[in-house]
Amino acid sequence: MIRSDAAPAGPIGMSATATWSHRPLPGRGARLTGGLLHDWQQRNLAESLPLALRQLEAAGNLDNVRLAIRAAADGAGGAGTAVRYRGPVFMDSDIYKTLEAIGWELAHGDRPELAAFAARAISLLKQAQLPDGYLDSYFQVTGEPKYSRLASSHEMYCAGHLIQAAVALRRGAGDARLLEVAKRLADHLVREFLGQARGLDGHPIIETALVELYRETANEDYLALARQFVDQRGAGLAGDSGLGRRYLQDHLPVRQSVTEVGHVVRALYLEAGVVDVAAETGDAELLKSSVNRWADMVATKTYLTGGNGSRHSDEGFGDRFELPPDRAYNETCAAIASFHWSWRLLLATGDAKYADHMERVLYNGFASGVSADGQRFFYVNPLQRREDHFEQDDPGRRHEWFSCSCCPPNIMRLVASLDHYIASTGVSSTGDDTLYLHQLTGSQVAGAGLEVEVVTGYPWSGRVEVTVGTAASGERGLAVRVPGWSEVTGYRLNDDPERPVVTAGGYLLLRREWRPGDRVTVELDMTPRVHRPDRRVDAVRGCLAVERGPLVYCFEQADQPAGTRVDDLLLTPDGALSEAPVTLDGVGETIQVRVPARAVRPGDADGGGPAEPGTPTEDVTAVGVPYFQWDNRDGGPMRVWIPADGAPGALG
Amino acid sequence: MIRSDAAPAGPIGMSATATWSHRPLPGRGARLTGGLLHDWQQRNLAESLPLALRQLEAAGNLDNVRLAIRAAADGAGGAGTAVRYRGPVFMDSDIYKTLEAIGWELAHGDRPELAAFAARAISLLKQAQLPDGYLDSYFQVTGEPKYSRLASSHEMYCAGHLIQAAVALRRGAGDARLLEVAKRLADHLVREFLGQARGLDGHPIIETALVELYRETANEDYLALARQFVDQRGAGLAGDSGLGRRYLQDHLPVRQSVTEVGHVVRALYLEAGVVDVAAETGDAELLKSSVNRWADMVATKTYLTGGNGSRHSDEGFGDRFELPPDRAYNETCAAIASFHWSWRLLLATGDAKYADHMERVLYNGFASGVSADGQRFFYVNPLQRREDHFEQDDPGRRHEWFSCSCCPPNIMRLVASLDHYIASTGVSSTGDDTLYLHQLTGSQVAGAGLEVEVVTGYPWSGRVEVTVGTAASGERGLAVRVPGWSEVTGYRLNDDPERPVVTAGGYLLLRREWRPGDRVTVELDMTPRVHRPDRRVDAVRGCLAVERGPLVYCFEQADQPAGTRVDDLLLTPDGALSEAPVTLDGVGETIQVRVPARAVRPGDADGGGPAEPGTPTEDVTAVGVPYFQWDNRDGGPMRVWIPADGAPGALG
Repeated sequence: MIRSDAAPAGPIGMSATATWSHRPLPGRGARLTGGLLHDWQQRNLAESLPLALRQLEAAGNLDNVRLAIRAAADGAGGAGTAVRYRGPVFMDSDIYKTLEAIGWELAHGDRPELAAFAARAISLLKQAQLPDGYLDSYFQVTGEPKYSRLASSHEMYCAGHLIQAAVALRRGAGDARLLEVAKRLADHLVREFLGQARGLDGHPIIETALVELYRETANEDYLALARQFVDQRGAGLAGDSGLGRRYLQDHLPVRQSVTEVGHVVRALYLEAGVVDVAAETGDAELLKSSVNRWADMVATKTYLTGGNGSRHSDEGFGDRFELPPDRAYNETCAAIASFHWSWRLLLATGDAKYADHMERVLYNGFASGVSADGQRFFYVNPLQRREDHFEQDDPGRRHEWFSCSCCPPNIMRLVASLDHYIASTGVSSTGDDTLYLHQLTGSQVAGAGLEVEVVTGYPWSGRVEVTVGTAASGERGLAVRVPGWSEVTGYRLNDDPERPVVTAGGYLLLRREWRPGDRVTVELDMTPRVHRPDRRVDAVRGCLAVERGPLVYCFEQADQPAGTRVDDLLLTPDGALSEAPVTLDGVGETIQVRVPARAVRPGDADGGGPAEPGTPTEDVTAVGVPYFQWDNRDGGPMRVWIPADGAPGALG
Repeated sequence: MIRSDAAPAGPIGMSATATWSHRPLPGRGARLTGGLLHDWQQRNLAESLPLALRQLEAAGNLDNVRLAIRAAADGAGGAGTAVRYRGPVFMDSDIYKTLEAIGWELAHGDRPELAAFAARAISLLKQAQLPDGYLDSYFQVTGEPKYSRLASSHEMYCAGHLIQAAVALRRGAGDARLLEVAKRLADHLVREFLGQARGLDGHPIIETALVELYRETANEDYLALARQFVDQRGAGLAGDSGLGRRYLQDHLPVRQSVTEVGHVVRALYLEAGVVDVAAETGDAELLKSSVNRWADMVATKTYLTGGNGSRHSDEGFGDRFELPPDRAYNETCAAIASFHWSWRLLLATGDAKYADHMERVLYNGFASGVSADGQRFFYVNPLQRREDHFEQDDPGRRHEWFSCSCCPPNIMRLVASLDHYIASTGVSSTGDDTLYLHQLTGSQVAGAGLEVEVVTGYPWSGRVEVTVGTAASGERGLAVRVPGWSEVTGYRLNDDPERPVVTAGGYLLLRREWRPGDRVTVELDMTPRVHRPDRRVDAVRGCLAVERGPLVYCFEQADQPAGTRVDDLLLTPDGALSEAPVTLDGVGETIQVRVPARAVRPGDADGGGPAEPGTPTEDVTAVGVPYFQWDNRDGGPMRVWIPADGAPGALG
């Protein structure tokens, strides 16, 4: 392997020999300077990460590692410890996700408290690691046999997150201390599993982690083990978790599988690993199988918000077109896994549809995972909450932390690294000479010999200004993604009058010799629009949804006219939508969308409850806010999909 | 307590002091002589019960009892046994349900194999019972402390089923051997729990069982303990099953609860106990609370098939109007519990709506639980199966037995006792002088001084002939239920010309001095009809369903015209429905309903998959069969609800 000269300091430090269409930005890449993504990263630093640091002590994650240290000192089993291991078997992974977030965050500037926490945690982990490299506090504390129940043990899942944290600390902060721990642990896995058919971890992530460690260390055993874990799927080696082989994506060889099944987060982390392995090994067949499953998933098993997972019972994908808004699972971790997978496919293929989908996920199904104040989190992200919602399996409100708290620190590691996902350079025969801007947001971006500043109020505004700061000599490309939901409604290069737009594969693409001060201005159409569902989605037949720019809207009880229940709204499909920028308590700045509607008026006979068919209606204005901003006020009803007026079943 | 002179030989041997509006038939009551219910009872005897007898050996239920006997001999804990307890903690209850079925079945005639099995099983149970009366093979074999984890232990659930089996064997077969075991166990419960706040079983059924045992023995401690268990709900005494207090109906006192929540079977068995306690103690307030929750459940949390349970994740009720057809849980046991609850409310109030609902449950959501050959069973009864259905938590086909096999023997005990639920006598100031025929089926019925023969092809035909065999002197009432979905379209008394129909509260009611040979003929309207959903049910908006008589219809792939996928059908709501009696392989005799429809024709561009909006359509005839007969052929797609042609969302 030849290490790329300009390996990025973010996720995917791809090797020079790998087969990709795009590369992440070299070096530190982009910087977020303003707008939603920048604000989310600031909130993540100021509010969310300090919460995680407190919770990792309070919930017992760090104490578990301390118990493992004591168990190592006492001999296996830790029988001498009066205090017991706390929490689910994968508690270590929450520490690692937090350390990964810290790794990416330390690249943004001095964060003494985060750095101090990382130093303490790394010290504990070094002490807890066994001489042979094994490290997993649950198995060290309980003395349960190692690698003996891989379907549920999460041992390699935890190892994978440790490796990713180590890579982030190395790339983001130049801190290689955890990387030494990670290499010893990975070497242990190589010794135990490489070249054998001993088992597969029931919860993937080790695959991407090993590829990243290979990229960081040039140790080809890591890539070989990742490839082996991908190739061994489908033979029952993951064992039995009690939920069947589909649940573990172990029902079919990866190359033969045509649709996503089973536990969503497991499936999508595996897919990210599949693309990593395919690209690093030049395996076009393997890549194609992942490309095909992505297309199937987005067409048949994905919510309007970009979320995946229709079932609570196994945190799983449902059947094709089984997409109930009320019982949507849409785990926040699944959105993160989806984002990671799509990014790899975007780099591998250069197809803008992956960037489009990343945008949908990012601003909707992922962003809804955090409260406006950054201190509460959704595990489940449904598209509807009814008035009497209260069942146990979905509390319906964001929580500060969970007994299974995989989502909050996962959110933190993605938000801390968002700057690495907004742009890339395109690989061509003449070198990486085109800078692609995938996510339109206030930023400074450097790549392909260009340094540009992006100024925009996106996603609130559709105007995007890209100004060239410095430009290397020679002709270079600058590509601005045009989202699939919009035409380019205005476009200027410097002070030239408006001119024909040249788009290529979803990008407005300009090739020229650039000079400092050159400015490209693009206008996108942010007019609110009505979305009609695919006829095959049974659960929202006869309903409409509203979108504006990349944002899916929702209708919360708090915003509706007095006396109008969300569940009594009927949207008038052909009415004119309007918008209004407002600041709402709890929510902050937003743009409301106002939609002509009728409201059913339950009479006295209904006892205040929902109306019977035939009940009179009244003209009203339904008021929507972006879905990601929901549940920042009361716990009232919410709907993304509202019945269309005039539909059979609306008042049938 | 004064024991009623003519206590019935079926379920609910009510005491003379209880407050009921109706009574079950005295003595052996009704006999099924022809038609579906009769055929189901015959099939239950010939096919299902022999299967249960085999499975109780094969799955380990009886071996568990043998282990308990050995453990009792060896001392607690059974450490000396090499063979281990098998199956879930409530394996004993499957034996008891089977014994209950045998008890009811032995009343129908000599069944030597069933009697021999009962004798063997009772002998084992007598040996396994501890000297203090405790009996539960799981706790005796494992040595786990008794009554220490009532939220999940099912100890009283098993005890309840044992008591009900003992009552059935006593009433149906005159066999009191198991009743002695049941009394010793109940006495143990009385000693351990009566007058204390020690705990509640997480899975109700002990409540009805204790009331039945009180009726059988006149021991008022049993009634007092049942009342205590009802009154103690809502204080957290059921403990924590890990799914919260709503799951266990322990979140609110019964009298304050206004809607069904949590695990459906638990909730509905509890309700049957609530009505039993209320009626036996004359507690009108308690009865009213159950009446109100029933109305709420039927209006907001019940499927068209009469099924209950919208969620797989906790086998639970969903929110109001959360009724997805594809992910309907509708556990077969829940239909049985619903039937038991409605029967008690019918007896308590005399309101025909309960008999109407029992009919809906019986012929649809309950009957679908068994295959046409009586040898395979559904645990889950959805209203839709998609083409690519295959997830783990619902296999989609009936199975012979389950690792948790609560449903098959539960079906058997209800089918064996169906004759007891078709008629009752009305209590009035002049005594029980009116015979009510609730379920219209071929039968001989005796009560209120009348013996009548009912001849009908119902539910296939709407003609019902009731002929008086013998009649005691004096004026007596004869009441025939007129189902809520029909008018009386024809009616004759003997050879009198047609005359005005007198209906009272859902019954065609005649009071006169009856003579042998008197014949009442009633005609009901069996024209197939289209059902439109309540607008508040999001999951089936814009769809239609078809019913004929009491039968809900479904559309299976096997019956549709060649080349027409069930998922591409659009029903033409105003078209004329027709019907055709046919005999289908696997299904047997049935009446198909044929509905004018359009079918979407996916073009080549769709690759054979579902069509995009705008795809052309073609006139076709959609063909339905009764829902209870589904899944007796291939495992193809099925729908109860079909999109209406012309609905927004039908073709976008």
